[in-house]
Amino acid sequence: MTEGSDDIQALIALMARLPGLGPRSARRIVLSLIRKRAGQMTQLAQLLDSVATSSRECLTCGNITDRDECAICTDPARANGEICVVQDVADLWALERGNAFRGRYHVLGGTLSALDEIGPDDLGIPALIDRIHRDGISEVILALNATVDGQTTAHYIADALADSKVSVTGLAQGVPIGGELDYLDDGTISAALRARRRI
Amino acid sequence: MTEGSDDIQALIALMARLPGLGPRSARRIVLSLIRKRAGQMTQLAQLLDSVATSSRECLTCGNITDRDECAICTDPARANGEICVVQDVADLWALERGNAFRGRYHVLGGTLSALDEIGPDDLGIPALIDRIHRDGISEVILALNATVDGQTTAHYIADALADSKVSVTGLAQGVPIGGELDYLDDGTISAALRARRRI
Ligand SMILES: [Zn+2]
Ligand SMILES: [Zn+2]
Repeated sequence: MTEGSDDIQALIALMARLPGLGPRSARRIVLSLIRKRAGQMTQLAQLLDSVATSSRECLTCGNITDRDECAICTDPARANGEICVVQDVADLWALERGNAFRGRYHVLGGTLSALDEIGPDDLGIPALIDRIHRDGISEVILALNATVDGQTTAHYIADALADSKVSVTGLAQGVPIGGELDYLDDGTISAALRARRRI
Repeated sequence: MTEGSDDIQALIALMARLPGLGPRSARRIVLSLIRKRAGQMTQLAQLLDSVATSSRECLTCGNITDRDECAICTDPARANGEICVVQDVADLWALERGNAFRGRYHVLGGTLSALDEIGPDDLGIPALIDRIHRDGISEVILALNATVDGQTTAHYIADALADSKVSVTGLAQGVPIGGELDYLDDGTISAALRARRRI
């Protein structure tokens, strides 16, 4: 038993499986927590327990919340006519940090994938189409990743809405703010060039 | 409230302060935990709570343990005549992973530092010298970092034992200049330990 106690070893092993961590960073974190245990570690345990108990998916949009409906779906100040469709809750959080969108969201929880046998029903796309019609949505923004699966999913949803009056849009592709051309992949540069605009 | 609930935001903020993490990696970890909450998150909360409650310093060597004395100090199979002095518990763990040392340890908890006004008493060096004489130690291995403060500390301890019959050794060169033990691969540490030499 190298690391102090069975519990410490189990804690390091569990931490090491978290995304972006490994045995070395898990050991550093656990040692740092033990050194400051009175405060940080107990607080972390309590928050983890509380979040584990209370977190669930918003019944309307799929965002993570501690109530039936999330703070965005129940916010009367947000526009009802626009839905932004994202793959993942992390994307919703990123858009909210950008603070540029004031409508509602829909979290798919994944993308269509022939390889992984993920179809429209697995992602609840029929329910999304129903929601769009039922709520009288005028614009659907498909904020999906610029990957093959992301764009396949975007095109599938756009096709399903082609016969309606709903306006379907996607994020602009281009050079990120502060981005240096030399560090961008060729596809991004080509897309930015094709979408060039007068300044 | 961007991220789901107040507790989720507090959890991300707390995680982001852990060594090696930041807001982005903390968000990824918390989202990943929420997705698998039934298992991983509750287990993590319980282990953190258990470790926070039970962890303490070994009364003999300063290693982290969940008892009065650590598993190394109470292991009858380990050699009593050798003490390996390390700066930090992380270094003790690293040496144990290398599996080349079968004696006992002493964790200083820091190094002498004129700048930070850390003197011999702050590190319990007089108590270490007492322990070395009381336990009839024949060899003291100073496995301290190859930094200025680490080597100053090693020379201080070697000087304090100069008039005794105790053999004082240090890790062989192989530990890179400025290198910290916790960041070395296990094989390098083992090789440096086996080739240890008199200081
Ligand atoms: Zn919602
Ligand atoms: Zn001990």
